[in-house]
Amino acid sequence: LGYGPPRGPADLRERIAERIARQEGYAASPDDVLVSGGNSQGLDLALTMLTGPGDIVLVESPTYALALQMLRDRPLEVAAVPMDANGIDVERLEGMVEALAAAGRKPRLLYTIPTFHNPTGVSLSPERRRVILELARRHALILIEDDAYREIAYEAAAPASLWATDPEAPVVRLGSFSKSLAPGLRVGWINARADLLERISAAGLLESGGCVTQFAASVVARALSGPGYDDHLHALRRSYASRRTALTAALRAHLPAGARFVEPAGGFFIWLTLPEGVTSARLLPVAEEHGVSFASGSRFSTDGDDGSVRLAFALLDEQTLAEGARRLGLALRNMPSPAH
Amino acid sequence: LGYGPPRGPADLRERIAERIARQEGYAASPDDVLVSGGNSQGLDLALTMLTGPGDIVLVESPTYALALQMLRDRPLEVAAVPMDANGIDVERLEGMVEALAAAGRKPRLLYTIPTFHNPTGVSLSPERRRVILELARRHALILIEDDAYREIAYEAAAPASLWATDPEAPVVRLGSFSKSLAPGLRVGWINARADLLERISAAGLLESGGCVTQFAASVVARALSGPGYDDHLHALRRSYASRRTALTAALRAHLPAGARFVEPAGGFFIWLTLPEGVTSARLLPVAEEHGVSFASGSRFSTDGDDGSVRLAFALLDEQTLAEGARRLGLALRNMPSPAH
Repeated sequence: LGYGPPRGPADLRERIAERIARQEGYAASPDDVLVSGGNSQGLDLALTMLTGPGDIVLVESPTYALALQMLRDRPLEVAAVPMDANGIDVERLEGMVEALAAAGRKPRLLYTIPTFHNPTGVSLSPERRRVILELARRHALILIEDDAYREIAYEAAAPASLWATDPEAPVVRLGSFSKSLAPGLRVGWINARADLLERISAAGLLESGGCVTQFAASVVARALSGPGYDDHLHALRRSYASRRTALTAALRAHLPAGARFVEPAGGFFIWLTLPEGVTSARLLPVAEEHGVSFASGSRFSTDGDDGSVRLAFALLDEQTLAEGARRLGLALRNMPSPAH
Repeated sequence: LGYGPPRGPADLRERIAERIARQEGYAASPDDVLVSGGNSQGLDLALTMLTGPGDIVLVESPTYALALQMLRDRPLEVAAVPMDANGIDVERLEGMVEALAAAGRKPRLLYTIPTFHNPTGVSLSPERRRVILELARRHALILIEDDAYREIAYEAAAPASLWATDPEAPVVRLGSFSKSLAPGLRVGWINARADLLERISAAGLLESGGCVTQFAASVVARALSGPGYDDHLHALRRSYASRRTALTAALRAHLPAGARFVEPAGGFFIWLTLPEGVTSARLLPVAEEHGVSFASGSRFSTDGDDGSVRLAFALLDEQTLAEGARRLGLALRNMPSPAH
C-alpha cells in the first residue's frame, strides 16, 4: 500500500516476462516490462514521453476510434495509412515515410494494431511484419504496437508481437489484461526496446506516484500465479470463437450480395463492408427499426469514410448474434433507395 | 470489473462530495468530482487537456520536485514565483503576470500548493487567498491547486481550498487519498470550475479506458462508507502532530544560531533554512557521517538555490526524530569552514 517502484510490482513483471518467453519465443526479463494502467494509459504515457509538438503520427485507417481521440488531445499531426485484409499496406506506408522525408519531415511514430485489429479483425501478414520492422529500423520510425487482443486467439495462437520478433527495432508494445481478465482493473504493460523503455520510465508521473495502477496490478499478479488464468483463457477463447462462428455463419446466410467481411481469427470484431452506395449513417436508423445496432464505420476512419460498420460479438450469445445477423440482413434489404 | 464511467465510480464521487460539503462549506455534488489516479495522474491529465506547446506555467519556488519534472516532460515554459512564510508572494505573482501580459504573453496556469506546502510546510494566508482568486479571475490564470496534505491538519482544520472558496474562479483542485489512506492505492480526485472539469473529462484517455484507477477507487469508496475513515484520520493527525512537535522542539534545542524554520500546522515537512554560507550540498556528507539525512533544498528549487533542506517527519517516531535533530545540530557545528 506504500509507494512502489515506477515500473510496477516486481511479481507481476516476472509473471508477464514468463508468459512472453513461453508464448512469443523471446526470453524477456522483468526489466523489459513496465506495468501500465491499461493500454490507453500506456499510449498516453508513450505519447507524453516520445512525441513533441507538431510531430507527425501515422495511424492505420480505419483504427481504434479512441486512440485517434487521444492523439487529437495533443499537438500532433495525424496522417493515415490504408489497410487491407493483410493489415496495414506497407508499400503505401513506405511511400508516405519516404515522401515525408523528401519534404524534410520525419514521422515520429506509427500507431498500429497488427494482431486482431480493432475494428477490422484482421492481422498483419508474416511477410508484412518483416517489412514493417525493417522499415521502422531504417527510418527510426517508432512502432506503437497496440496488442490488446493477443490472448483472444481462436483456432491458432496469435503471431509473436512485433516487439518480441525484433526487440532491437524501435517498437513499443502495449499489452493488456483488459480483454483477457477484466477491463475495470485497468492493468496492462509496456515492452519496448531498452532505450525507449528507459525514456518512458523516466516520466515524472511515474517518479512521483509510482505505477499508476499498483494496487490492481498486485491483484493481477496473484491471479497469474496459478494455472487458473490459463484455464480461464481457454474457456474465453472457446466461448468467443463459438460466438464469432455463430455470427459469421448467420451473416453469410442473411446478408445481401455486396456486403463483405473477413472472418476474424481472433479479437472481438467483424468489419462489415456495406454494399455499394450504402453508408452506415443511412443504415443505422433502419437497422434500429429492425432491433439491431452497430458502431458506425466513420468513427474509426480518419477521413469520414462511412461504408463499413463494426459488429462486436463478444458480449452476446450465439442465438442473439444469429438473430442480429438476420435483422441486419432484413434492414439492408429494406433500405429505401437513395434519392436521385 | 467492467469499464466504468470516465469520471470514476459514482459511490466514491458521492462520498467525496459529502466530505467537501461537511469540511469546506461548499455544497459540492458528485458532478463536481472526477476520480483520478492520485495527484500526479491528476496533474498529468490536467496538463494534457489544459496546456499547449510553449505555454508559460508558473510555479512557486521552492515547489514539489516531481511536479517540476512532470512540467519539464512537456513542451512548457516554467517560471518561478518566490514564496515566504505566508505562501506565494502574490504581489510578485501579479507583477509577473502583468509584465508577461505587457510583453504579449499570457501565463496559462499556476501550479500551487496553498495548504501545508511541500516542501516548506506553510499555508497561504487568508488575505492572499482572496488576492490570488481575484487575480486568477481577472487574468484567466488557471490555478492548479495541489491539495494533497489537506487532511493532515494538526491543531486547526485546514482552510477551505481555493476551489471551494470560489468555485467560479478558474481553479483545478487536486485532492488525494495518498497521504490520508495509502499512497499505493493511487486514488485521488479533481474538482474544478464546471467548464474546466468538462474539458479535462473529455480526455480520450478517460473515454477509452474509463477511470484509470477504477478498481482501487471502489475499494476507497467502501473505506469511506463508515465512520472508520474519520477515526483513522483523527489517529493520524494526533500521531503526526506529536512527531512534528518532537522534531521542532529538538531542532530548537540543538540547531545553531542562523538556522530557521516555520513550525508547520499540517503536512509532513519542515523546511529548514541553513545558516548563512551553508549549502545542503556541503552539509549532506557531514550529516551522513553523523548518521542523519535529508532532502536537499536544490531539488525543490527552480534556480538551484541550495540554502535549505527538507526534513520529513511522517515516518519516524518521536525518539528517532529527536536524535536526528541532535545529530543534525552536531553536523552543522562540525562543518568544515568553507575554503577562502
